[in-house]
Amino acid sequence: MLPKQIKRLIEELNKLPGIGPKSAERLTFYLLQKDHGRLQALAEAVAGLKQGLRFCQRCCNLSEQETCNICEHPGRERQTLCLVESPMDVFVLEETGVYKGIYHVLHGAISPLDGVGPEHLTIAQLLKRFEQETFAEIILATNPTVTGEATAAHVSRLLQPRGIRITHLAQGIPMGGQIEFADQDTLKRALNGRREF
Amino acid sequence: MLPKQIKRLIEELNKLPGIGPKSAERLTFYLLQKDHGRLQALAEAVAGLKQGLRFCQRCCNLSEQETCNICEHPGRERQTLCLVESPMDVFVLEETGVYKGIYHVLHGAISPLDGVGPEHLTIAQLLKRFEQETFAEIILATNPTVTGEATAAHVSRLLQPRGIRITHLAQGIPMGGQIEFADQDTLKRALNGRREF
Repeated sequence: MLPKQIKRLIEELNKLPGIGPKSAERLTFYLLQKDHGRLQALAEAVAGLKQGLRFCQRCCNLSEQETCNICEHPGRERQTLCLVESPMDVFVLEETGVYKGIYHVLHGAISPLDGVGPEHLTIAQLLKRFEQETFAEIILATNPTVTGEATAAHVSRLLQPRGIRITHLAQGIPMGGQIEFADQDTLKRALNGRREF
Repeated sequence: MLPKQIKRLIEELNKLPGIGPKSAERLTFYLLQKDHGRLQALAEAVAGLKQGLRFCQRCCNLSEQETCNICEHPGRERQTLCLVESPMDVFVLEETGVYKGIYHVLHGAISPLDGVGPEHLTIAQLLKRFEQETFAEIILATNPTVTGEATAAHVSRLLQPRGIRITHLAQGIPMGGQIEFADQDTLKRALNGRREF
């Protein structure tokens, strides 16, 4: 019974992660109340999202220039490299304002079940960077998931012969979290990684 | 640090109801991984949402024609009119497949605090319908909120002199809900509206 324009947007929104059929319907009927300019602004933001964006030739992060802002920034510590799975990880780490080094974005994690091998990630580009840059520490900041840890292990094996310090992000109870709700793996890591108070 | 194209979409998505800054960021980085065609499909669905849509001249629901599918449908019972606040309400009531009558969409509810008076709703159009159509029952299906109930009371006062049967949707414990979590008003309505088992 719904007009096809309405059905179409519900379908498109429903494809997005975290937006179920009910949310897609609600968002669509919300947008139906908005004027043409508002719809146009959203449509243009979507259509233009990737216009002028490319991958930084050095760290493979999203960038407007050949080399990204972070790689170009004179204030960054160039001997510390943080290895992450995605551009969003760079974004959230940057938001903390704590990290002063540079990054390398893998664009995924090794996952044989999904057909993603090391050759699908930017590991070749990473190894190439070692020819031009000198690093004192590599922080493996992949996700603490099966695929993320497999990726960290793989990269670690490749880099070990170079004698660089290899670290990974601390794992434990998240701030504001409660011990009684922590899963067993998190508790084990929290215990094994305990530190002086 | 984020490229302006990315910031712009995060801002636009963040304006949508139920999408906070974190969800807006996640959706944007998700879309960044998608190809041009996928972005274009979503952008066109947004931009084209209202193209060719108008309000039904009879019931004020969204329609592709001058008169909507429901008003035109020969199988609908024309003596029962269901009064709703929005086109989404028509949609969810139609989804039940239970209602066979026709509708009238008010496009809002009376809310003096928001500057919405009866004159901002389609109440004039509703009264005009009584000149051309004959109704045996009016179902007041506004939301059981302060503004929805005020609207129902207002319309009811206007229609009472006509001697038509005026009903409203049953109010009580929702299916799958639990009595211990029901609020006092809902419980009061559920008790007052109790029926033979």
